[in-house]
Amino acid sequence: MATINKIGLQGKWNLSNAKKENVMNNGKVLGVDFNYSHYHNKRRFSLVIKSCNHGSTYKKVDTINGTKVNGLQVVEAPKKLSTDVALVTNGKFVEGRFVFRQIFVIRSYEIGPDRTATMETLMNFLQETALNHVTSSGIGGDGFGATREMSLRKLIWVVTRIQVQVQRYSKWGEEIEIDTWVDAAGKNGMRRDWIIRDRCTKEIITKATSTWVIMNRETRRLSKIPEEVRRELSPFYIHRIAVASEERDCEKIDKLTDGTAETTQSGLAPRWNDMDVNQHVNNVKYIGWILESVPIKVLEDYNMTSMTLEFRRECTQSNMLESMTCPTERVIGESDNNSVNRKPDLQYTHLLRLQDDKRDVVRARSEWKLKQSQQ
Amino acid sequence: MATINKIGLQGKWNLSNAKKENVMNNGKVLGVDFNYSHYHNKRRFSLVIKSCNHGSTYKKVDTINGTKVNGLQVVEAPKKLSTDVALVTNGKFVEGRFVFRQIFVIRSYEIGPDRTATMETLMNFLQETALNHVTSSGIGGDGFGATREMSLRKLIWVVTRIQVQVQRYSKWGEEIEIDTWVDAAGKNGMRRDWIIRDRCTKEIITKATSTWVIMNRETRRLSKIPEEVRRELSPFYIHRIAVASEERDCEKIDKLTDGTAETTQSGLAPRWNDMDVNQHVNNVKYIGWILESVPIKVLEDYNMTSMTLEFRRECTQSNMLESMTCPTERVIGESDNNSVNRKPDLQYTHLLRLQDDKRDVVRARSEWKLKQSQQ
Repeated sequence: MATINKIGLQGKWNLSNAKKENVMNNGKVLGVDFNYSHYHNKRRFSLVIKSCNHGSTYKKVDTINGTKVNGLQVVEAPKKLSTDVALVTNGKFVEGRFVFRQIFVIRSYEIGPDRTATMETLMNFLQETALNHVTSSGIGGDGFGATREMSLRKLIWVVTRIQVQVQRYSKWGEEIEIDTWVDAAGKNGMRRDWIIRDRCTKEIITKATSTWVIMNRETRRLSKIPEEVRRELSPFYIHRIAVASEERDCEKIDKLTDGTAETTQSGLAPRWNDMDVNQHVNNVKYIGWILESVPIKVLEDYNMTSMTLEFRRECTQSNMLESMTCPTERVIGESDNNSVNRKPDLQYTHLLRLQDDKRDVVRARSEWKLKQSQQ
Repeated sequence: MATINKIGLQGKWNLSNAKKENVMNNGKVLGVDFNYSHYHNKRRFSLVIKSCNHGSTYKKVDTINGTKVNGLQVVEAPKKLSTDVALVTNGKFVEGRFVFRQIFVIRSYEIGPDRTATMETLMNFLQETALNHVTSSGIGGDGFGATREMSLRKLIWVVTRIQVQVQRYSKWGEEIEIDTWVDAAGKNGMRRDWIIRDRCTKEIITKATSTWVIMNRETRRLSKIPEEVRRELSPFYIHRIAVASEERDCEKIDKLTDGTAETTQSGLAPRWNDMDVNQHVNNVKYIGWILESVPIKVLEDYNMTSMTLEFRRECTQSNMLESMTCPTERVIGESDNNSVNRKPDLQYTHLLRLQDDKRDVVRARSEWKLKQSQQ
């Protein structure tokens, strides 16, 4: 349930992380194709066996991990099918309808100079799982993550804020497993969270959370969530939090000015291929421009451990952008907790703004830790 | 066997497409893992059936595409387990050791404004299959596609020329199947070809061919192929051509000048994330810059059906680039053949050059066809 458009939040809705309990039995959803084949992490394996003696008679043989059904114990031959292909191609539901999972292998062109996945790559993966989640749920409409009832009303999703916490960046060739789910966020918002795990060790290596609202794609005005849309969404809502409340970066991001920015990079021009299907700049592309005003020594010697992006205005190919950065002293989280890894070595505030009228497009905050010498 | 570095070709080797016959039985290659489960494009599907009445007795039931075996016709239920996971994650060998195959699903962030895969995406896929080919072959060294004997000698691959012919761009969510293989190209070069097929229909939708030479990564000088390296490579060589000789774009690409270029876009600055592991600009990134000097109406209304890139000089982050484009009248291929689809509506010559001393980095040629109105 993602869109790659965004616009300034002028609405008056409460987008706080409402602790709304999950509505488990909230109406029936038309056309939802639940895929339970990884239900409880057991491989479900269905066959239709046709008797050769009684040509037209079909019997359904159903097994879970080789348990016998219908008088036959059916066991898969020793092939290398330990991972379901669907998990790698388009992802699939796990835990019933609530959590959607997809596996990615870090490819050669998705890594940066230090041979690990970049923040852009991670954000691309998050977008991909979100979209596949909607498609697999059966409620998808004709748009980029919009539901059918949204498409009927020309409504689209816009992300207003996303926070990504990276414990460790995966190397080229490593496999990661991304879980995503959604929940209500106040009356007219939706929260989408993600957990990225190392596929082998199951270690959590990235956590992310985001807030979405609905916009009319023609008037570009924000909209309440229509009741019909809420009925499509709510069966999928689950009250589960990827980023713990003490680690959530909910604070306002200061707007940098010519006076407060330490470095400014002007003349950043969107390229043709930075555009999405709606001729707007793809969200993920902003990260590259933000990094343009970060000192090169920081890019070389530090890992970005956290990034919070606040999307405020759309940007098209005709816009020229300025990237501004300023170091900050702010410390996220409780100072007395024992998660020493969370304390960054560097913190920055960023602003991407239109070069002509100086209106802000994206505000951002980043945290960095010195790379380990053994890397 | 790819690298993302490139440098001007100053060598004197014959890189013509030598019709060297394949050396079929030329030595044993350590660690090659052949996987035949897609042998002859038939889905092979094995089950072990255990009778419930005679607990310990196993009978092997083997079916190919649902043909009956052992008195039972076993038909797969409509599940999507037809693909071997390895094909999707890292690719695998087909046809013995000679052809390497990988499947890709076009992801949401790999498409352009018209919702189809971009030329950059295709080139990324080509690079990925090439690298996975080397890794899977068991001869890979520590570098980006270098063999062990190359790594021992500090040698790397550099691509000097690549031609990509696109019949049709795949849409978001479509599955494609890429085959790649290598052959000798003259005495000191290697040719790598690719065929991209629609995974469902098997229709060929893209063909590509490239020429590679070896360079010393410290002196940056071109090198002959050492005998030890040739012994690693030659068991994988197969004489097979993706792009037919009459469609090969072997002609010299004219160098544009301020006088001949019709449009010039200056001030193109590589971003941090455009760099590869060697701190040089990744090959694929050049395409975006080349498109910067193509008229926007062409990008909107035409599909690029062919691109030939000639890599001439390395580029680092400190370099500023200029992109130049000029329409040309040249027609590729025989004018009297019947492949009417091959005749482009537009042709362009391109040059990417360093802004300060005007030395050329990449020369390119592109062909375009008007988009179908029904698209």
